[in-house]
Amino acid sequence: MRPGTCGSARSGGRAPILVVRATMTHVKPRHFTVDQLHAYLIEIFPQVWKSGDLRIEDLAPMAATVRLIHHPRHLRYGGTIAGPAMFALCDVALYVAILGEVGPVAHAVTTNVSINFLRKPAPADLIGKARLIKLGKRLAVGEVEIYSEGTSDMVAHATGTYSIPARGESAVQ
Amino acid sequence: MRPGTCGSARSGGRAPILVVRATMTHVKPRHFTVDQLHAYLIEIFPQVWKSGDLRIEDLAPMAATVRLIHHPRHLRYGGTIAGPAMFALCDVALYVAILGEVGPVAHAVTTNVSINFLRKPAPADLIGKARLIKLGKRLAVGEVEIYSEGTSDMVAHATGTYSIPARGESAVQ
Amino acid sequence: MRPGTCGSARSGGRAPILVVRATMTHVKPRHFTVDQLHAYLIEIFPQVWKSGDLRIEDLAPMAATVRLIHHPRHLRYGGTIAGPAMFALCDVALYVAILGEVGPVAHAVTTNVSINFLRKPAPADLIGKARLIKLGKRLAVGEVEIYSEGTSDMVAHATGTYSIPARGESAVQ
Amino acid sequence: MRPGTCGSARSGGRAPILVVRATMTHVKPRHFTVDQLHAYLIEIFPQVWKSGDLRIEDLAPMAATVRLIHHPRHLRYGGTIAGPAMFALCDVALYVAILGEVGPVAHAVTTNVSINFLRKPAPADLIGKARLIKLGKRLAVGEVEIYSEGTSDMVAHATGTYSIPARGESAVQ
Repeated sequence: MRPGTCGSARSGGRAPILVVRATMTHVKPRHFTVDQLHAYLIEIFPQVWKSGDLRIEDLAPMAATVRLIHHPRHLRYGGTIAGPAMFALCDVALYVAILGEVGPVAHAVTTNVSINFLRKPAPADLIGKARLIKLGKRLAVGEVEIYSEGTSDMVAHATGTYSIPARGESAVQ
Repeated sequence: MRPGTCGSARSGGRAPILVVRATMTHVKPRHFTVDQLHAYLIEIFPQVWKSGDLRIEDLAPMAATVRLIHHPRHLRYGGTIAGPAMFALCDVALYVAILGEVGPVAHAVTTNVSINFLRKPAPADLIGKARLIKLGKRLAVGEVEIYSEGTSDMVAHATGTYSIPARGESAVQ
Repeated sequence: MRPGTCGSARSGGRAPILVVRATMTHVKPRHFTVDQLHAYLIEIFPQVWKSGDLRIEDLAPMAATVRLIHHPRHLRYGGTIAGPAMFALCDVALYVAILGEVGPVAHAVTTNVSINFLRKPAPADLIGKARLIKLGKRLAVGEVEIYSEGTSDMVAHATGTYSIPARGESAVQ
Repeated sequence: MRPGTCGSARSGGRAPILVVRATMTHVKPRHFTVDQLHAYLIEIFPQVWKSGDLRIEDLAPMAATVRLIHHPRHLRYGGTIAGPAMFALCDVALYVAILGEVGPVAHAVTTNVSINFLRKPAPADLIGKARLIKLGKRLAVGEVEIYSEGTSDMVAHATGTYSIPARGESAVQ
């Protein structure tokens, strides 16, 4: 086994990652560790990531888990968490899953989201579990399940599509 | 013609509205003027309405127009306006249209939204035009078109469903 | 252990099911076996179920699997399977899951579906796997994954909402 | 004024259309008349268009109206028209609007549809009115309103996205 670098042309020379490659099996190098992706996101989306309300809990192949830390400003009439806050968590969780899989494609943009609000969440952290169900050259489609921390009943569910621009292009529209 | 009060049982005695009823034609009294609805919203959703970023531009039968005043915190990488901010405007515009039509049903909650992001908006105010396409006893369905102020190309489009609870009940789910 | 009947008031006296109840654990009696539900569906939706193109492969708590047998009439230009045929499979799979869970609520109607077509399916049977993510008194929300038989890449994914009428009422709208 | 032919490169030499161009104003030549588009659709989608159940009522810039003639096979339990039949009408109406605007892009495929079923339609013809709200190089987004003939209350509403392949490519996914 020997350390190597992440060699994907799509990472464009950014953020080399030390990975240990097992000689017998082929492990696809990940573009980011959680900390590296977090640092990248703070750099390109400071308004969203600098506050510390969002945390990447996990990155896995075609998947990501993001936590939205509870804050009174997310609350709405009746003590529920605002729909837009839950929408934002879905949007971010998909984006994190895509970057985790594809690399630093900062210009990837949401083209479509469909979200169902299922149950009133408790005033607690929300956990968004995203998985990509399709990753093409130009479009990624994923779904996100949102849970109140510590419960097993889904509070919201969304599917969303992202457009991933080719290098040098704006997002395909 | 004589002034009268808004007599709908559903308004529950709140906010009487002086309307002029033409004796020859029947005009359905509106539950709120724009200012009254604005005051009601500040009372029940201060986190959203106190900042002054949102303004009700117009209320009409089965319709409402809401403005989201531009602010740097809505911006994202590349100078575009965040998806969640546009989602929030759709959500609010539908809610305003429903309250304008039904009265102070503060517990009405979004159950489903499908939103398409069509064009990158300019860093300018966003105008959300909502119209209700169906208003039943328990469910309201509407669509919202979002425009950058001063342009005619839609930047986003959404359809959404709200659940309207009966008096004394929580929202039907 | 002793045999018993399905006692849910909502089944309205139809199609009693013999179940064996383990004395030590409580197994919720299912409203239908696969064959019973199939017979019920042929009775209420002959146009859909009599042709034999649809088969219930499995019923489980909050879930159902339905097969759409391939037929040339489902094909479209380029050899792909028509979107409406895939939509119909999603719709049916959710309906089957709901009836399997709730009983013979024939008047349950679809209120909303959002469907993503991900990959061109092969001209083969389609397998629709539905799971209910929420089952309330009046609304059920579920998701469906569609696969071409024998493959593991999803060809379509949908989420849908059904309105379940109370006895004697038409579907809540 | 003089007659001219449709010169768009995208029509690839098919189906020249005689148009009368006003010398003072510029009218963009349409790719198809209603009859020409109907003939093209019968050729590429005989399973859908040969039966005569579907008729193009109107083609206009960025819009199309399609009629689904009522037939007992579309009926469901309780006398309502099947969701899949209404979905198919939405899908077709968008496709017709796209071809009317772009030309014979037979490989254009639906990538996403979100549909709301609003009211139970009468057992009558359905009229689907599609308008494109965005037409990019690779993606088209439109909405469709469905009415029962002779009524003004919408029975269903959908928004959908189509992927339009570049010449020689399969649909962008």
